[in-house]
Amino acid sequence: MENIFTDAFFMKKALQEAEIAFEKGEIPVGAVIVIDNKVIARTHNLTELLHDVTAHAEMQAITSAANFIGGKYLKNCTLYVTLEPCQMCAGALYWSQISKIVFGASDENRGFQKMGTQLHPKTQVVSGVLEKECGDLMKAFFKNKR
Amino acid sequence: MENIFTDAFFMKKALQEAEIAFEKGEIPVGAVIVIDNKVIARTHNLTELLHDVTAHAEMQAITSAANFIGGKYLKNCTLYVTLEPCQMCAGALYWSQISKIVFGASDENRGFQKMGTQLHPKTQVVSGVLEKECGDLMKAFFKNKR
Repeated sequence: MENIFTDAFFMKKALQEAEIAFEKGEIPVGAVIVIDNKVIARTHNLTELLHDVTAHAEMQAITSAANFIGGKYLKNCTLYVTLEPCQMCAGALYWSQISKIVFGASDENRGFQKMGTQLHPKTQVVSGVLEKECGDLMKAFFKNKR
Repeated sequence: MENIFTDAFFMKKALQEAEIAFEKGEIPVGAVIVIDNKVIARTHNLTELLHDVTAHAEMQAITSAANFIGGKYLKNCTLYVTLEPCQMCAGALYWSQISKIVFGASDENRGFQKMGTQLHPKTQVVSGVLEKECGDLMKAFFKNKR
């Protein structure tokens, strides 16, 4: 039997969250955190609604997953996020010692790779999963804003 | 009349917060955010209690100050924090466009300066205010732990 639990499978769930952010007028970034093929956190960017720069999808997902686990380390967890994490989110992921980060679209300006933010040595990174879909949603958002 | 509202004056308040963290068994870091010589946020590290790597003093202070202001940008605000911010907190401070950051002790291993985290160009940084007091509290904490 084919394994349905691919990176694209979970990125679609992150993309659904990004679409909810879009509908709310938020920069459309969504995230899920998965352990043993089970989604334990499902979040989207809420910086405008909450007037809070720390309310990125990833930050909420980390807090939510840690609550679920009952511990602060996200070992054996994978974060799926539609946009490459920023310095803040990558810094939080560093502390969490998360096992794997999968992101969709790259952020050439504010992404952690360009900024040189350090992840935990245990963390594996995969990029470009559903890159076009994730990037197109961002482009549609900023086109609407102009 | 002498100006009582010096950087040391507000760092003492951050240090009081760090002492509360110490008493709770948390890594003793405290922070306050000040606008027009008025403290609008007062926080300490709660990562252990909350099982949440994002619960650094600075992150809570940013959220708290933004709630007070009713907006996400911390213009004309100064953060006083007993320890040099990490990548995550510096990344959050970048987004907040805070005017000034004053820290006590340096963090040679995980501090944002060593890690190369970028702050907002509008943000001024002052270091070493009550450095010994802030650093001594950290040392006492880790000595207790051994």
